[in-house]
Order: sequence, then C-alpha cells, then structure tokens
Amino acid sequence: MNGQQRVFIENIQPQVNCGDFPVKRVINDKIEITADIYCDSHDVLSAELLCKFQEEEEWQSTEMEHVINDQWKANFILTSLGSYFYTVRAWVDHFKSWHRDILKKIEADVDYKVDLKVGAILVQEVMDKHNDITEKDRKYLQKVEGKLTSDEASPESSTEPILSGKLLRTMVKYPVKKHISQHQKEFEVSVDRERANFSSWYEAFPRSLNPDGDKHGTFKDTINFLPYIEEMGFNVLYLPPIHPIGKTNRKGKNNNVKSETGEPGSPWAIGGKEGGHKSIHPELGTMDDFQELIEKSKEKGIEIAMDVAFQCSPDHPYVKEHPQWFKKRPDGTLQYAENPPKKYEDIYPIYFETEDWENLWEELKSVFLFWIEKGVKIFRVDNPHTKSLKFWGWAITEIKKEHPDAIFLAEAFTRPKVMYNLAKQGFTQSYTYFTWRNTKYDIVTYCKELVEKEPREFFRPNFWPNTPDILPEFLQVANRAGYIQRLVLAATLSSNYGIYGPAFELMERTPTRPGKEEYLNSEKYEIKNWDINNSGSLKKIISRVNAIRNENKALQNTHSLKFHDIDNEALVCYSKATDDLNNIILVVVSLDPDHTHSGWLHFPVRDFGMEVHDPYQVHDLISGSFYLWEGEHNYVEINPGVLPVHIFQVRRKVRSERDFDYFM
Amino acid sequence: MNGQQRVFIENIQPQVNCGDFPVKRVINDKIEITADIYCDSHDVLSAELLCKFQEEEEWQSTEMEHVINDQWKANFILTSLGSYFYTVRAWVDHFKSWHRDILKKIEADVDYKVDLKVGAILVQEVMDKHNDITEKDRKYLQKVEGKLTSDEASPESSTEPILSGKLLRTMVKYPVKKHISQHQKEFEVSVDRERANFSSWYEAFPRSLNPDGDKHGTFKDTINFLPYIEEMGFNVLYLPPIHPIGKTNRKGKNNNVKSETGEPGSPWAIGGKEGGHKSIHPELGTMDDFQELIEKSKEKGIEIAMDVAFQCSPDHPYVKEHPQWFKKRPDGTLQYAENPPKKYEDIYPIYFETEDWENLWEELKSVFLFWIEKGVKIFRVDNPHTKSLKFWGWAITEIKKEHPDAIFLAEAFTRPKVMYNLAKQGFTQSYTYFTWRNTKYDIVTYCKELVEKEPREFFRPNFWPNTPDILPEFLQVANRAGYIQRLVLAATLSSNYGIYGPAFELMERTPTRPGKEEYLNSEKYEIKNWDINNSGSLKKIISRVNAIRNENKALQNTHSLKFHDIDNEALVCYSKATDDLNNIILVVVSLDPDHTHSGWLHFPVRDFGMEVHDPYQVHDLISGSFYLWEGEHNYVEINPGVLPVHIFQVRRKVRSERDFDYFM
Repeated sequence: MNGQQRVFIENIQPQVNCGDFPVKRVINDKIEITADIYCDSHDVLSAELLCKFQEEEEWQSTEMEHVINDQWKANFILTSLGSYFYTVRAWVDHFKSWHRDILKKIEADVDYKVDLKVGAILVQEVMDKHNDITEKDRKYLQKVEGKLTSDEASPESSTEPILSGKLLRTMVKYPVKKHISQHQKEFEVSVDRERANFSSWYEAFPRSLNPDGDKHGTFKDTINFLPYIEEMGFNVLYLPPIHPIGKTNRKGKNNNVKSETGEPGSPWAIGGKEGGHKSIHPELGTMDDFQELIEKSKEKGIEIAMDVAFQCSPDHPYVKEHPQWFKKRPDGTLQYAENPPKKYEDIYPIYFETEDWENLWEELKSVFLFWIEKGVKIFRVDNPHTKSLKFWGWAITEIKKEHPDAIFLAEAFTRPKVMYNLAKQGFTQSYTYFTWRNTKYDIVTYCKELVEKEPREFFRPNFWPNTPDILPEFLQVANRAGYIQRLVLAATLSSNYGIYGPAFELMERTPTRPGKEEYLNSEKYEIKNWDINNSGSLKKIISRVNAIRNENKALQNTHSLKFHDIDNEALVCYSKATDDLNNIILVVVSLDPDHTHSGWLHFPVRDFGMEVHDPYQVHDLISGSFYLWEGEHNYVEINPGVLPVHIFQVRRKVRSERDFDYFM
Repeated sequence: MNGQQRVFIENIQPQVNCGDFPVKRVINDKIEITADIYCDSHDVLSAELLCKFQEEEEWQSTEMEHVINDQWKANFILTSLGSYFYTVRAWVDHFKSWHRDILKKIEADVDYKVDLKVGAILVQEVMDKHNDITEKDRKYLQKVEGKLTSDEASPESSTEPILSGKLLRTMVKYPVKKHISQHQKEFEVSVDRERANFSSWYEAFPRSLNPDGDKHGTFKDTINFLPYIEEMGFNVLYLPPIHPIGKTNRKGKNNNVKSETGEPGSPWAIGGKEGGHKSIHPELGTMDDFQELIEKSKEKGIEIAMDVAFQCSPDHPYVKEHPQWFKKRPDGTLQYAENPPKKYEDIYPIYFETEDWENLWEELKSVFLFWIEKGVKIFRVDNPHTKSLKFWGWAITEIKKEHPDAIFLAEAFTRPKVMYNLAKQGFTQSYTYFTWRNTKYDIVTYCKELVEKEPREFFRPNFWPNTPDILPEFLQVANRAGYIQRLVLAATLSSNYGIYGPAFELMERTPTRPGKEEYLNSEKYEIKNWDINNSGSLKKIISRVNAIRNENKALQNTHSLKFHDIDNEALVCYSKATDDLNNIILVVVSLDPDHTHSGWLHFPVRDFGMEVHDPYQVHDLISGSFYLWEGEHNYVEINPGVLPVHIFQVRRKVRSERDFDYFM
C-alpha cells in the first residue's frame, strides 16, 4: 500500500459483469470510456485512458477530460479486428492545482509572493524529471522560473506567464505523475467486422430449391437461387445443416417417429455412414459444389452462413469412434435426446460432463476451423444453450484468435439469463424474443431492455419474424399488412434481422394444429416446392425494405434506437440516426393490420440537431411521399389497406427565402 | 479450468462496487442474499450460500431456493458485531433432475424401466460417497435401490418411493456435489450495533452551558444540562472539540481574523501549550470530569459523541514534534489552510502526501484509540473529505477490529461521489444534502437515491436541519411551522438525525448577512447564553417527536421508507414499517408553513398486509386524533397554524361486528 496515493477510480464504463466479459464493438467504431475519478480535498486531477490492441502490446495513453460530477471521459478508435484492452489511471496534478489557486489570488489581489516560489519549484521539478523537453520549451521554463523566484521582478512580469496561460500550456505537455492510481482491472472490448452489426439473413433449405420440385435440390440449384435473394437485398444466406442425415430412427413427414422409405429426414439429425460434421450430404453435391456456392455468393455480396448443430444421429461416426462423448444408460444403450415425456430418438446429445471433455472440446472446435478453411465465416449455432456455456467461451475465443472475422449467431430460445450468458461467452449475434413481441408495450419494453440496459454492451439482437421451428400465432392469422408490419419491425428495430423463406414471403401460415406454432408439413422433414413467382409474394416490399436498409446508415446500427411518444396504442414510433446525425430515420408502424389509425407523435427535434421551430422535411422511403413538418408534434395516419408503415427519412435542412442569394 | 463445471453464478447481491467494499447492516439483522444461478440445458441445480464470521472461520452453508427467472436466495442472521463474509456455490443436481424427469414419465405412462436403473445408480452413489448417513436412512436407501434394480418388482412397488416423495426427502439430506462452481469473489458485510441505525443527536457547546452565562461552561455544567436533553428524548450528545485551543492567530467574534484578549477562539483550532488531540481544554475541566460526564450520560441512555478534527493550530505540539506532517512553504513557514483567496491562518491542515505517512497514520489512529479507552464510542469526524480517503479506510478497519462497537459519523458536505466514498471506506453514518432539500421534488428524489439505489447498502444518512456551520436559508425565514416541518422531515425520513441546539429549539435564525448561511454571532467563536426556558421553545414538540421515534420501531430504520402519491405539491407523504408489518407509520408533511392544504393520498394497502376494502385505523401520534380509513385513497387536510404534519400510526385490525362472540 502506498499511503501517498490519494486518487480513486471507479465505475469504468462500458463494462460487463464487473469486467469479467468483453464488451462488443465493430471495426472503426469510436469507443467512449467514462470513469468516476476523484480524490479528497480540492486538488485538480489529471487522468488518462490506457488502451492497447491485444494483451501483449504496450499501453497507449489518451488524456481524459472531466465531464461533470467527477465523471471523466476519453475515447479511442478501434482500427483492428480482435481484442482491445483498456483501463484508467489518474494522479493529483500539483501544477494545475497551483495554477488555479494562484489565479484566484492574483484576481483577488491577496499576497501571493510565496506562491510564486512554490510555482518555481514545480517548474524546476518538470525540468528535472523530463528529458524530453524541447529546447524551446526548456528555455521558456528556465526564463519563467527565473521570474518566479526573482525578488526584483515586477508583479506584471512574474504573473504574465500565468495570466497569459502560456506557462500552463507548456507545463501540461510534461506532466509529473506522482503517486499514480491505476484501476486494478483491465477491461476488454472485442472488435468484429461490420457484418456483425448489419446483416440481413435469408434462410433457405437447399434441398427444396430444385425448380422442378420433385427432385432433391442441390448446391447448384442454390447457386441458381442466388439472384432471387440478391434482388431482395439480403446479404447472408443461411443454410440448415448440409451434412449426411442419419437413417436410424429417421423422422418422417410432420415429425412422424417413423419415416417411409425415401423420406429425406431432418437435416439436424446429423451423421451417417457418409460422415459427420465435416462431411456433405451426398444428395446436395460435393465439397467443390459447396465451395463454388460460397464463391458465387460472394460475387453477389452474399455470405453463406452455416448451421452448426452439435448433436449426432445414431449413425454418426463419433458414436462408434468416441462413445465416451455420449451418455450411456444402464442397459448399455446411449441416451437419446428427450424433454420428458417427449423423446427424440433420432438424436444423441453430446455429454459435456464426459471425463474426456478436453478431446471433445478440441474436436468440436475443429469443426468450425474445418469450415472456415473451406471459406465459411458465419455460423448459426443450433441450440447452443443445451451445450456447456463454458465450452462456447473457450471455443469462440480460440477460433477468433486466428479468425477475428468469424461471426457466430446463437440460436437460443431459452431463459433470459442463459441467452445473455451466451452473448457474454462471445456469440456475435443472438436470436431474441422478438418473434413473440406483438403489442406496443411488449415491443417497447423489450427493445429498451436491449438497447438501454446492460445487454446494449454485449448482446447484438437478430430479429426473426419466423423460423422453420416457429410459425408465431400472430402470423398464423395475419393478413398481408400483418406480414409487412412484422417484416418492417424486424428490419428497422434491429440492424440484424432475418426471415425463413420462401415460407415468409409466400405467407405460408398453416400450423400443425390450432395453438401450435409448428408449420404443417414442415420443411424440416420434407422437401418443399415453393412457388416463388406467386403474384401474392411479398418479394417486392421485402426488396424495398432491404434497399432502404442498405441505403441508410442509420438503420445499420441497433444502439441508436429511440422510441417516441405517439398518442395511439396501435401505433409505435421510433427513430434511428448515425452519430453525426447526417442520416435520421423515423419509423411509424401500425400494429393493427385491419383498421386505419392516426395519432400525434412527439419527435424531440432538439435531440436531432434542430430547433423547435425549424421546419424539416420527412420523406416516406416506402411510398415516396414528402411531408413538411415543423416542431415536435406532428400528425400521422396509417391505412393498413394501403401500407401499415411509414419509414421516413428526416431531412433537417429545408429551403427558405433565406437560402436565396438575394436575401442577403 | 474444469470443463465439467457447467454452472454459472453471477450478480450476487447485495454488493458494493463489485465487492470492493463491504455492505452495512446492524446486529441481529437478517441479510438476504440473492444470485443469478443457471447452467446450460434443463438440469435441476442445487445452490448454497456460504457465510462465515471473520475471515479465518470456516464456511457455513445454507441451502438456497429458486425465486424466479434463475434468481436464487437465502439469508443468514448477523449475530455478532464485526465482519461476515459470503459467497455462493452451486452444482448440477443429477438426482433432482432424474426425479423431476421420471415423475413426468410415470405420469405420461411412457417407458421408464431403464430410468429406474439410472436412479439406482444415483442412490448407490450417495451411499458410496456419504459416511454420514443415519442407520435408518441407509437401510431405506438400500431397500429402494433393491426395488429400482429388481426386474421382478411391480411398477407400483418401484415407483412408490418416487411418487411418495420419500426418496427425494431422504436423498436431499445427502447431496452429491460434483463439479461445483463457486463464485470467485467473497463479499463482506460489516455489522454494527443498533445505534448505527437509530440515533437522535443533539449538538451543544459545553462552554455555553454555564447557567449564569457570563462564565465559561464546563463538563460539570454539561452534566447539569443532561436532564434537558433526556427530557427531549435524544440519545447522543455531540460535543464540538474539547481540546486546548490555539492562541496564535486565534479567531475573534464573527470569524474576525483578530481576537480580543479573553475571546475563547474556535474549538476547531486544536492544540496549545496544554496539549493536542489527546488533551482537554483546561477551562472545560479535567479528564476525570469528562469521564464523569460520560458515565452520567450513560445512566440516562445518552452517549457522548466526540468531534475529531484532524487539523492543528500553530501552537499544537505536533507542529514542533512532527513538522514533516505539515506542508512547508519556500519561505520556511508552514502552509496554513486556505480556499483561495480565503485564508484560515489559525489552522494548519495535515499533509497526507508526507513521506512519513506511516507514522502519521498510526498517530492519528491512536487518537481514536485514546478516547475509546476513556469511554467514547461515537466519533463525529470533521471534514473527513479533506483528509486522505484511503487513510479512513485503513484507520476505521483497524479500529473496528478491536472495537466493532465504534461509530463514525462523516461530516462531509462535498461532491456526491466523495461523500459516498467515505461511507464505502467505513464511516458508519454520513451527513447529507438534506439540509438543502426543501421542495417535494428534491426531497423525494434525494431520499429515493439513498434508499432505493446503490447507497442503500453502504450509506447511512444522518439528517440535520441545522449545524453550527449552516443556518439554511429556509430556516432564516421560517416560522414555527417551518421549523417543525424540518424537524419532522429529518426525524421521520431518516432514522438517524440531529439538531444543533439550543439554537434550533430557540429558532435562532439571524444570518451574518442576507444570502449567507452562517449564524450571526456564531457560537463557534464566542460563548453563548441560551435561554432554554423561553416559552417559545420547540422543546415540547421535539420531545413528542423523539418519543414517537423511541416508541415506534418503524421509525428506527431508514431503508423501509416508501413515498406515496398525494395530489398536492405542497404535501409530501411517506411510510415506514417494520419487516413484520406490526408497526406501520404514515407521515404527511406540509411544505408550506403558511397556508392550509388538503389532498387525496394513495396508500397501497396491499403492500401493508391489508385488502383493498379492509377498514383500518390511523392514529395521529402528535395530535392524538383517530381516523377510520378504508381503501387506498384517503383525504387529509393540514393547517400549519395548528400543526404542519401528521404522523399516523396505521393499525390494521379494526373491530367489526364479526369480532363479537355472538357473531359466530
């Protein structure tokens, strides 16, 4: 303990779980760090933010500035993928304290002769301790020191360096850092590429993409399907598992426990005699075909996302090669998956409490590395919450050391704390409860939890109106307006979103039975033949929404989301903006797909760089209409029979007579 | 790393700064600990709270129970003064998981034969691992194991131990804790005696207590003054410094920089040729007199609180003996206190950045120990925020190791984070901003910060309407009702409060000049002659308020404070209750000392153990009036000309016809 240290540093933000987990950002983000810094008495402090890229590098320091109420701030730019570390240090700045106090004394004209000599000692100290002073500055400091110590110098001459501020400006270049306090913890920020923050996912089963429909679709069919996805403006194409499917206990149509000969089985029952998680289902094509798909997609700005589901069909090679990775039952059989009383006998879960966990972890990690090698950089991980959470923390960290551009989406629909833990362990993006948030209260409360509370720093939501597993009750009874509403909510509330298509755009909406959220004749168990050219398809409006996302930077982040009051429970209103406010999007969605609603919304113009009486233009990017608004309260009306949403771009500058040359 | 550990424990509460500082409680409190505990998948967990008294003892474990949403809780009783430590551990409970699942299978009548054998293995494991099983339980478990493994046993016979719950009840006595996760941090709770939570302070200058008034008061006069304080119901008598007062640069009347011969000086200019911080000012009496005062006070249930002001007059012995503990100026003189351009030349502050800090710290600590030896256990520390914060953390911890019943009140009026830090360092109670909180918004916001946010766990407020340093603007212009309002707010919002008397009860209210909050002819610089028998004195109402505090446990805690809506900005309404709801106090204070106000208040009766339509009685403990109320909304009217407050005791049970014998 050093009793001469007097400065306290606490509440460094952002931080997750007291610094136990990293916060998340994307490349070129400016991260602002704040901390509470103070000491006893009334001395002036100096503080610096320390940051470094990767653990082994040297600290770089940035001066912090005091904001208010003992809170200080500084920022740095994240120019590389990977991990940065940061902490804060501070010290009592005797020179600055002296400077502040003597200024007050000079102003009040009280005796300050001895104080001048105190100043001289501080100047001398800088000259003694710093060998990096420029020749010019050293000369200046020597001269000032002379004036401060001289008993003959006139008051004007000895106070001039103080009053002019020049002495201060020179001295702060050479701080004397005595009895430094440094926060005991180093915080981490994990930096991803831009796609982590902005992605538009389309999920499709390659086996259903054969245009004839009666044959098993292939990667080649998928390549032919790319223009359709490209037209709609998606940038991630996510494929369910592409590995060999088990034959033992294969599921039939509609999750039947027995399958007929020729039924394709669920792609999630992974592993057969043709191989396991590193093999390709022969009916889809070859590894070369798959790599061609990756290449062709890339040319269109689309990335292939792969499904990683760590579970095995009874025919998976692991079952014979590593029986210790599965739980054995007293009768000698392996434990199949179950959620009592339900059984899933086509699948063996992996036993994470195995004594052989180290080899297991290595092998599972190697699955990711294998596919990264083949060109995949985005993984949608199936049910990660049923695998050891610690494993994910380790695996994702290890993989990202070599491949900081890898992206992991956690498909976990489970309890909130487990979902958040997966994000803390390193998952880049996460599935959410959006799928079931339909009312204004639910939407607003949930989104505020994500963007205003702790999850903001580590949890990147990815909003899905539907998935092959979930046909939500809302969509089962929705008309076209209802589908558009869910699409626009997902695509504008969250900068990461996705749909399971073509089921979504074709408004496939029959459940297995009322009250269930499972699709009837689910594509999970059979090959579908989608009529993508159907005139009722939502393809056009989806294309428009994605085009708006692609053209407006404001929609490429989730964290700037702000809700605005609107006096109608059927209407929800929110905005997003870029940090520089050069792109502002204001969205109004009607939650009622059947009736026309109107309301007065409150848009706090001052938060967006305008004055209360400035006129501004709002341009509905969907309908193309323009409106001239003024002030904070404005009227909107939505007829869902036309369109259930407005996506306004707010343009701050509107021409007035003052803009004409002759006005001057 | 153990990859087989699957349980996560986070967000253990209460905690202060991620566990860097202890939380505070008083003896016999039940402390409830909560934590978020979860693992992957759907296994059942078991968790235990570990706690121990003092660091060196063994952990005691208490089973935790699941509350909701992966939050768990348990509590323990704090039966000793000093520090307790706590943390949490948890593990996957395979037996409980098995029991839950097989119950579902039995109920759904699906095949569970193999599961019975899994259960037998778990039962055998308990018998293998536990040598503390009672004879009776072992026999029972052996019998059950036989039934579970037997292929001949009837389904009824093998499921009976499961369905009856007896197997579960037996097994939970002998948990098998595999792959335990324990939170990496140990949290501390510091346990004080009850006075830490409930104290009524009266501040008086002994030198003004000579009944004749023209002589310097003494400890003997103070003993004669005790009945007056006792009658008013105070339990702490706090004396400004009782040490020798310096002569050099002694301050005169009204803070005059020069004093006349015979002027007594400020008691805070500590130290003269008669001694320093361990000596007594000769005019007050002897050490024996002081100890007699301590004894006589104790007999009346009053404790003497001593002022500790670590600063020295130029005549203090430390100045000669330890010049290195003061800052030297270039002209060879010592640095007096200043707040530029103001100077306080009668005082030298201590220089906490001295190289000799270790000896300094030891000496300052010894001042407390010296007076504890003499019988003082309560210290009001003067301006602790102008001394090293770290020093306080060290000194209070060291002193409390030997004297866990010592109480320290921090007299710091400074920036919020510094005030909170002093409490984190170990100050038992703290002065607050209450002195300047007069409007409803300010009172409610500030009190909510103290009792609903983080300070709740470490900061015990002590509310003062006035001090010798502060005659707040409100009191300068207040009538009698205004004084009573401030008294009742202080005494009922906070269980620790105090007044500076007799100035308060005599409504002394002249400032040095308008806009200043300093008393004219301040007692700090002269001997006063208080007319305590003046008929205008507030003595009676103060006595009544303290009697109410002493008789009502609800007012002896601060943390149960809850504000209730009342539809009038001039009225503030709040309640306090004991944990068992056997004592409920509801207070309404008018903030307008001049006009009659009325309003409807909303008292959420269900939070206080009543139903919405139960009638209940409210009894105004000040006026003695009774009212019969029903429901959540009730009318109150306050005429400040009579009394500006209601202090209601809420009595839940009101007799009705059902209470008579014949009603049955």
